[in-house]
Amino acid sequence: MRFFSDNAAAAHPKVIEAIAASNRVDTAYDGDEWSLRLDRAFSEVFETEVRAFWVTTGTAANGLALAALCPPFGGILCHKDAHIEVDEAGAPGFFTGGAKLILLDGPGAKVTPHAIATACDGIRNDGHQVQPAAISITNATEYGLVYRAAEVARLGEFAREHGLALHVDGARLANALATTGENLADMTWRAGVDALSLGFVKNGGLNAEALILFRTELADEIAVRRKRAGHLLSKGRMLAAQILALLEGDLWLDNARAANAAAQTLSRACGDRLIYPVEANELFLKVSDEEAASLRAQGVDFYEWGPGQIRFVTSWDQRGEDVERLASAITAL
Amino acid sequence: MRFFSDNAAAAHPKVIEAIAASNRVDTAYDGDEWSLRLDRAFSEVFETEVRAFWVTTGTAANGLALAALCPPFGGILCHKDAHIEVDEAGAPGFFTGGAKLILLDGPGAKVTPHAIATACDGIRNDGHQVQPAAISITNATEYGLVYRAAEVARLGEFAREHGLALHVDGARLANALATTGENLADMTWRAGVDALSLGFVKNGGLNAEALILFRTELADEIAVRRKRAGHLLSKGRMLAAQILALLEGDLWLDNARAANAAAQTLSRACGDRLIYPVEANELFLKVSDEEAASLRAQGVDFYEWGPGQIRFVTSWDQRGEDVERLASAITAL
Amino acid sequence: MRFFSDNAAAAHPKVIEAIAASNRVDTAYDGDEWSLRLDRAFSEVFETEVRAFWVTTGTAANGLALAALCPPFGGILCHKDAHIEVDEAGAPGFFTGGAKLILLDGPGAKVTPHAIATACDGIRNDGHQVQPAAISITNATEYGLVYRAAEVARLGEFAREHGLALHVDGARLANALATTGENLADMTWRAGVDALSLGFVKNGGLNAEALILFRTELADEIAVRRKRAGHLLSKGRMLAAQILALLEGDLWLDNARAANAAAQTLSRACGDRLIYPVEANELFLKVSDEEAASLRAQGVDFYEWGPGQIRFVTSWDQRGEDVERLASAITAL
Amino acid sequence: MRFFSDNAAAAHPKVIEAIAASNRVDTAYDGDEWSLRLDRAFSEVFETEVRAFWVTTGTAANGLALAALCPPFGGILCHKDAHIEVDEAGAPGFFTGGAKLILLDGPGAKVTPHAIATACDGIRNDGHQVQPAAISITNATEYGLVYRAAEVARLGEFAREHGLALHVDGARLANALATTGENLADMTWRAGVDALSLGFVKNGGLNAEALILFRTELADEIAVRRKRAGHLLSKGRMLAAQILALLEGDLWLDNARAANAAAQTLSRACGDRLIYPVEANELFLKVSDEEAASLRAQGVDFYEWGPGQIRFVTSWDQRGEDVERLASAITAL
Repeated sequence: MRFFSDNAAAAHPKVIEAIAASNRVDTAYDGDEWSLRLDRAFSEVFETEVRAFWVTTGTAANGLALAALCPPFGGILCHKDAHIEVDEAGAPGFFTGGAKLILLDGPGAKVTPHAIATACDGIRNDGHQVQPAAISITNATEYGLVYRAAEVARLGEFAREHGLALHVDGARLANALATTGENLADMTWRAGVDALSLGFVKNGGLNAEALILFRTELADEIAVRRKRAGHLLSKGRMLAAQILALLEGDLWLDNARAANAAAQTLSRACGDRLIYPVEANELFLKVSDEEAASLRAQGVDFYEWGPGQIRFVTSWDQRGEDVERLASAITAL
Repeated sequence: MRFFSDNAAAAHPKVIEAIAASNRVDTAYDGDEWSLRLDRAFSEVFETEVRAFWVTTGTAANGLALAALCPPFGGILCHKDAHIEVDEAGAPGFFTGGAKLILLDGPGAKVTPHAIATACDGIRNDGHQVQPAAISITNATEYGLVYRAAEVARLGEFAREHGLALHVDGARLANALATTGENLADMTWRAGVDALSLGFVKNGGLNAEALILFRTELADEIAVRRKRAGHLLSKGRMLAAQILALLEGDLWLDNARAANAAAQTLSRACGDRLIYPVEANELFLKVSDEEAASLRAQGVDFYEWGPGQIRFVTSWDQRGEDVERLASAITAL
Repeated sequence: MRFFSDNAAAAHPKVIEAIAASNRVDTAYDGDEWSLRLDRAFSEVFETEVRAFWVTTGTAANGLALAALCPPFGGILCHKDAHIEVDEAGAPGFFTGGAKLILLDGPGAKVTPHAIATACDGIRNDGHQVQPAAISITNATEYGLVYRAAEVARLGEFAREHGLALHVDGARLANALATTGENLADMTWRAGVDALSLGFVKNGGLNAEALILFRTELADEIAVRRKRAGHLLSKGRMLAAQILALLEGDLWLDNARAANAAAQTLSRACGDRLIYPVEANELFLKVSDEEAASLRAQGVDFYEWGPGQIRFVTSWDQRGEDVERLASAITAL
Repeated sequence: MRFFSDNAAAAHPKVIEAIAASNRVDTAYDGDEWSLRLDRAFSEVFETEVRAFWVTTGTAANGLALAALCPPFGGILCHKDAHIEVDEAGAPGFFTGGAKLILLDGPGAKVTPHAIATACDGIRNDGHQVQPAAISITNATEYGLVYRAAEVARLGEFAREHGLALHVDGARLANALATTGENLADMTWRAGVDALSLGFVKNGGLNAEALILFRTELADEIAVRRKRAGHLLSKGRMLAAQILALLEGDLWLDNARAANAAAQTLSRACGDRLIYPVEANELFLKVSDEEAASLRAQGVDFYEWGPGQIRFVTSWDQRGEDVERLASAITAL
């Protein structure tokens, strides 16, 4: 029973079908009929004109977005547990040409305007210190917490007032959206978000992510940066086709709801073991070494997060019986 | 009838099958069973121990290889028509952190030891000029010419004597190999090649290329550089599965042979119009504007290479009747 | 007798005096009284509001200017013999984060709108090729030729029409100015120049160059880029003081005139040996190996430029008797 | 009375004399007689063969050293208050091409093997996290604390065992050395230091710092990196001459001793106000706003370090009467 990562899940069958269906002669790169539909498709989803770029990884989406939003000599305010800081092997430094991540603290990897303000207040603008140029948040966070639209809007307001850009790493934005039930536009551009890395791979996709630009004037720059970074695939239609398949009939949201529901089922079994509230599809638990071993012995695969801590991540395709079995196993600990 | 680019062809059905077949829960990134088989599979193909990395584009393979072979302050000797110079939007500058491409001339985008020696002789080693660190050649070249093993070996010898690394952009190495019928090891590492960008996308693959390291000690660095550039896909198994499907039963070579054969058929119809000998799957022709228009009117899609010049590229899946029709059309011009 | 390079000359005594005179406790970095006077001083010299930054080398001035004028993914059009291409060890690649120098040809290292237009016409804007973002010219050129104001203006016009920035490497702009006798504003910002590397080190300074921004909105970026590149000296007053000393009473122009006059004297002795007209303080001559050896035997130090070619550079402090002796020696060859 | 920074002090008269004395025609760049003496001079000072490079700022020395010791994809372990992190506008990111500073904590900006080990233990080597490649410490630290030779040796041992390079930012190493009275070789290369940024500007120099390589095989790389960063001055003799003047007769150590002695005098007046022990030439004091205002009213210039904290830095040229007056003023608070 895999509760290790939604990264390891299978792709949705409709995604595989879409890849097969798009496998025919067409224009190379992103001139094909599927890729050409992306801007429109996402503009409808977001209820405003956006520019959308497929890429194959969240790291690429994040790196490209940050390079367009922050100069090489600028700083990016983010949580110290943010994926861009912790799990991308320094990609922001590579894509931006050496910009600095300015690390913030806060429970559950959430960033607040107060934390940002405090950090900014500590930075002298005397030419010797890196000046912040952007804020990057992750929604849902690396600990499975969700920013509601109003929270993003407060960050957006701070950003605007201080001349900072706002980027959202939305590797699990679908899960956040499924939880809040809010309007997607409210959670993003109406809240002041400039660019969004929108994840599909953890949510039924195979290898397609989308970089969404609400500041559409950045599109030309992103296009050349994507090519230059080796991220302009020659048969990009297979990426666009995946995304369109997931958008169709809100399949991406159904997938997220399924993953979240599995997480809620587990959550009820976890009780006081939970380190954070379960707001998306991740659970962090306190367990003893013996308990962890017991779960493994029962065939449960998970991530050892730290001493006495484990992480479960539920996926769109998590089988109900596996979820029930794990819930029982946790209860029985 | 598409003779525009092998980039735009469909993927081979076995590749699509392999993607579908690998679509199940497994370890993320490159820990899956398919990815784990790559080193072994390529070591057999190359008759020596190699380290193999999947990436999604030739630009990524080239950029990563060059970054490992050339320091930021070094120079890379390549032809002025090389893909890395002309068609990758400055990717080598991005991946290497600012290394310089030192451009060579020569017919058909081929590089000779003499051209390299002349360029090197013109570079003062006084601390003010960028010193060459690597040679990069393309085989088959951007004009469809082929380096035979002995030619590569002469470049390799020069490289070794001058402390330079040798990289091959093998986006169409399969086509070159199908032409020469030589031993693959002889065309690469036995000839002194350090790293190879081995193309599959133009040859039946969907979006998988391989970066082959003959200097296996570079593997750790490449692994982190790949991640850092956003090229470590979380469901990398779909890339490895494609490659394995193409290697199986030498499907990749069959594909290359099919493309080359189509090119030869066309070649015979072209006669004096040919600008370069046809050694792989590309044809460059002299045509008048009227002749070009006539071909287009007959439904032929091709690339206008320059004033009075057009390019045809044949693909693995080129239908025989299309090839015959185009050949007749050319003859009839 | 040193005719090797104006780089090797002594600094003017007033420069040394100024360094000594500024050697007292003051604010660090560029907050001292001398540095604070630079903007005003140069604004008067250029008859418009400029922002001026001291740096210690022309390479730093060029690199900083180009980084502000060209994005990492852009191209800089320059002559193939330009100092930034040939003699700065790849500094533009380092400062810009990997921008590409797009090389132009033309006699005497001069760039024409026609050469630029031809180069631009050859660049496809399809996302695969680096797009030009800036033009960089050297005045006087690396071969001692001078752009007159009208020539710069034509380049400026081209730049404006094509959305390109215009940078001038003015390591020897003083010499050019001394030759043309034109208005400095006409030769720079009125001709469309955005940023100027203004040399003093070859012209009586010790180690101070100035980066002049006519686009003053770039000043904040340049300030942080300068610091970040390690070019914000803590006792910057010694740089500002040098520059002010050279500006005072137009000492810098007197120095340039002296160097030019020496070059003219030599020029008259060179006759048909001259490869280029002598328009500033450099002379390129055709000589046989025996003739070169003869000059060396007479104590003349010079640069062997290429087979059968030598270069003389005259300096502000060239002694009249040395110039006469060299002129006689050339005549006697 | 300036107690703001040793950066703002005058240069020693012998340094100005040396600059004037070296102001004559000689070979450009670092081929002059003074520059050629540096390797030998420092090899004697350090009792081993070193390679020495003049640069004009500590930021340049640090950046160049770190770029040679850490790949673009590596990490540099340093204190969170280190100058390279806090006061160089992101220079390490620029020079290294995006390497990451991994921040450590510890009182007085001192780094311990324990703090480093803890940080390293928290870094997974799974290809997703930046791996440390180097340690950088500052001696004396940014809070004026001193690492003794044995402390450096313990860090060096850790570095060696873990395959890390060790860099010392020695902007105030002279002050540290003056305090410990230890052997300079023991404090550096015998303790495992690979490269040292050796400061002179805060200690009687005008604008010359030295980058000392104990791993001499890095010299070629540093030479080209220095040029490429615009730090190869054409009249570099003026930098070498300064350094030689300060080394002669141990003037640099006399200067450091003078600054330290002034700090000790003040230290005795500060009593419980001191936040850190005074081990070099910096004092950090707790004062109320009123007390700070009172000192300013008496003509004392200092740095407001944080709420309720001020910093004094003593310099080589601090007048005894000023020191006494400030000591009295503090006592009288």
